[in-house]
Amino acid sequence: MRESLCHSNLVKRDAVLVNGMYLNGPTLDIKTTYKFVEDAVSLILDEAVRKGTDILEKVCEWQPPEKLKEILDLELREGGEPHSKILKRCQDVIRYSVKTGHPHFFNQLYAGMDPYSLVGRFIIETTNPSLYTYEVAPVFVLTEDAVLRKMMEFVGWQEEGDGIFSPGGSISNMYAVNVARYHRCPDIKEQGLSAVPRLVLFTSQECHYSVTKAAAFLGIGTKNVYAVSSDERGKMIPAELEKQVLRAKAEGACPFMVNATSGTTVLGAFDPLDEIANICQTHNLWLHVDACWGGAALLSRRHRHLLKGIQRANSVAWNPHKMLTAGLQCCAFMVRDKTGLLQRCHSARASYLFQQDKFYDMNYDTGDKSIQCSRKPDSFKFWLLWKAVGTYGLEERVNKAIALARYLAVEIQRREGFRLLMEPEYANVCFWYIPPSLRKMPESKEFWEKIHNVAPLIKERMMKKGSMMIGYQPHGGRANFFRQIVISPQLGRADMDFVLDEIDKLGKDL
Amino acid sequence: MRESLCHSNLVKRDAVLVNGMYLNGPTLDIKTTYKFVEDAVSLILDEAVRKGTDILEKVCEWQPPEKLKEILDLELREGGEPHSKILKRCQDVIRYSVKTGHPHFFNQLYAGMDPYSLVGRFIIETTNPSLYTYEVAPVFVLTEDAVLRKMMEFVGWQEEGDGIFSPGGSISNMYAVNVARYHRCPDIKEQGLSAVPRLVLFTSQECHYSVTKAAAFLGIGTKNVYAVSSDERGKMIPAELEKQVLRAKAEGACPFMVNATSGTTVLGAFDPLDEIANICQTHNLWLHVDACWGGAALLSRRHRHLLKGIQRANSVAWNPHKMLTAGLQCCAFMVRDKTGLLQRCHSARASYLFQQDKFYDMNYDTGDKSIQCSRKPDSFKFWLLWKAVGTYGLEERVNKAIALARYLAVEIQRREGFRLLMEPEYANVCFWYIPPSLRKMPESKEFWEKIHNVAPLIKERMMKKGSMMIGYQPHGGRANFFRQIVISPQLGRADMDFVLDEIDKLGKDL
Repeated sequence: MRESLCHSNLVKRDAVLVNGMYLNGPTLDIKTTYKFVEDAVSLILDEAVRKGTDILEKVCEWQPPEKLKEILDLELREGGEPHSKILKRCQDVIRYSVKTGHPHFFNQLYAGMDPYSLVGRFIIETTNPSLYTYEVAPVFVLTEDAVLRKMMEFVGWQEEGDGIFSPGGSISNMYAVNVARYHRCPDIKEQGLSAVPRLVLFTSQECHYSVTKAAAFLGIGTKNVYAVSSDERGKMIPAELEKQVLRAKAEGACPFMVNATSGTTVLGAFDPLDEIANICQTHNLWLHVDACWGGAALLSRRHRHLLKGIQRANSVAWNPHKMLTAGLQCCAFMVRDKTGLLQRCHSARASYLFQQDKFYDMNYDTGDKSIQCSRKPDSFKFWLLWKAVGTYGLEERVNKAIALARYLAVEIQRREGFRLLMEPEYANVCFWYIPPSLRKMPESKEFWEKIHNVAPLIKERMMKKGSMMIGYQPHGGRANFFRQIVISPQLGRADMDFVLDEIDKLGKDL
Repeated sequence: MRESLCHSNLVKRDAVLVNGMYLNGPTLDIKTTYKFVEDAVSLILDEAVRKGTDILEKVCEWQPPEKLKEILDLELREGGEPHSKILKRCQDVIRYSVKTGHPHFFNQLYAGMDPYSLVGRFIIETTNPSLYTYEVAPVFVLTEDAVLRKMMEFVGWQEEGDGIFSPGGSISNMYAVNVARYHRCPDIKEQGLSAVPRLVLFTSQECHYSVTKAAAFLGIGTKNVYAVSSDERGKMIPAELEKQVLRAKAEGACPFMVNATSGTTVLGAFDPLDEIANICQTHNLWLHVDACWGGAALLSRRHRHLLKGIQRANSVAWNPHKMLTAGLQCCAFMVRDKTGLLQRCHSARASYLFQQDKFYDMNYDTGDKSIQCSRKPDSFKFWLLWKAVGTYGLEERVNKAIALARYLAVEIQRREGFRLLMEPEYANVCFWYIPPSLRKMPESKEFWEKIHNVAPLIKERMMKKGSMMIGYQPHGGRANFFRQIVISPQLGRADMDFVLDEIDKLGKDL
């Protein structure tokens, strides 16, 4: 091979000058910088991977914005910098970044680090492919298809289904809204919404905020998202859904879609899919299930009942970058339809990219299903992870995370000064910390006003110490409470105990 | 630090059993797999970086889909696989992937590999941040701001401007459409499009297909995208734009936006921005400039005249992952407005994420400007690259690419059997190859039908040989022609000669 590609014209010739540029040599040869890349990667593995996941190291090294600006020297200048200085910058960047793979990062739904998906990510970054055509991304087109088929099998679709990975659950939910309305009225694609009746979609008050963003972005309007009440556990109340559908019909609007959530962001609640599917069937509504967070439970024989009925959905969003630690982003959007609805809804048939006279089967050029042009092969890192640990390995991680969440809930109930919002069904554990000074106080308005200030103060202290990160929020009428997210496969029960001990230590003087 | 975080409760205790799971140890400790990560990274650097950019290695190792499926063994199974097998899979994946960083990959607008942005990408993947809040992404929030400010300076906005990075130029163009209509009629966000008159936007027939996709996705409708004719070089004709605007007004529709393109996808054409801006001013239309591909010319004192007038745009899309080799994706969307339009247009004010009682300046929580929730810090890799080579280094790369494109054009005109479509202004070189058998033929319909088949056949041969990759397409009434994209900083004039020699070698028997 080396010889056949080594043509005589690669031999250096006399210099050619065009526009004042000498064109003979390269401006940069990656090989001459190979040593720099090796040094940087070695530093990254040590600082961000090894130390970044070490329980004895800090989760974050807090600096306020103005101070951090000075440290980082953000200004971009005319001249470049030597390798030694760039390496120092890499070190600083890692140092002052939050270690989201650290076992004690409980702040978000993408906590934890997996070595296999990490390696998959390095492969993606070094091969730098775009997923639109088989021609430029042969391996990644095929792995996306394999991952989607397997995920759809767990959704419960056997011979059915189509899908695509998107850059975020929010965008997956947008896909759902667009496919649902196109399915109802294909003319919308060409004619737009100004030519059709007012469309209305339904979702619970506990749903992710991206449903509202989708309605705004897609021209439906946020007021045409009808919020359905949830019960005290955060699950959509089917009777309330039916009421809202009837209300929309009475108004002369056109109800077209229900968004059900499997694993809400704050409480980790699962909407009752079977009952919602019945209502959708009666009223001919598209059922989309936002299982971005809760979809992982499908892999667990013990917990998949949480999504009972999901196979009746018309579309499903499921993010393996959350509970399954595939790394940001890794977001599947899947439709039950297998007649090419996804492609018809989004295609633009660009002739410069999707040429119809290629020498291979052009059904493998899947890019026209997408609203993107260039698209990263996010599914690949999940494919490699799945290959490495198998379905059973993924199942074990899900079971372990939920078991740890339950252990934490029991500990919260057992300990003085902690109060659980509700028994967790999934991996969100919501609770208040009550400092000693408030433990004897009656539960008045004043009590809850004081409690409301506790979580922000403890959060500030834990970040400045760097010992852990855990989220808090108000919710409905409730005062600020902690929301612990349990994901990382590095966690054991001692880490759950640590969280409670640490909160008590940080907040007992409040 | 190590001591202060090393609490006694991390000491192993008796096993706890919950839901049939023992909770004491971790399921997986990344440290125990550290050796695997090191081995994999070493393999990736060698195979994908060192060999992947070696001019003496193949650009691609072609396999047809069915064959590649067998080789890769795509099926995901219940059991996992040992490290040795996963390493072998990594090797296969790299082997059969297209080397888009190879100097002889001329197929797409993101060719080439830069060592500094590559290192930035490794840092992003190992720290795995999401950009919505300062709390979880302090460094990356600040570097995004620094990069946007610098890019806006090159657009020509001094004290003005706001922006965000998005996962793709297509999505940036969608942002533009949404902000433009919101600016025209803020009620749309809440009320939706069914309550407003028919909106119409204008773009040249040469624009990227994402403008049409945006109109469909955002509920405007593809028929409300009025195509404006271009001249023979692919530039929008201002008089034709004005005609279309008057047509829409005469129809009683509501014209709201013009999309101008700086660097069209196929021909690399630049629309005349100043003349278009005049028309927008007259008719009160939002001017968006899709400079995803051509924006890089702003960094070149020699070539920035191509975008003369861009500072008059209301919004600009510019992808540093194209000409500036920042790696997929790296896409800035910028608006000239500095009154918070971007935020008002997209915000949903999720209280669990954008809490208003945080202990730092919450203006640094920029996530509510976005249509995404989780968002990768794509700007960071470009920041690191810019730090390493400086503005002058970036400028040199742009100048060199354009100079090489011109050299190639001269060679095409000099050589028998090659015909240039037009003199390049930028880094797209479009040309036909005419095999010896057709060189004497009169330029009849039959001649062009035969020419139409030449590029696909040569493309097939070059891919099966693996010697290079270069795109082709039909365009308007023109028969299939090659489109060579010149980006990689590894290129010299010998590589340009190589392309022509190789095409001749592959096609001379046709």
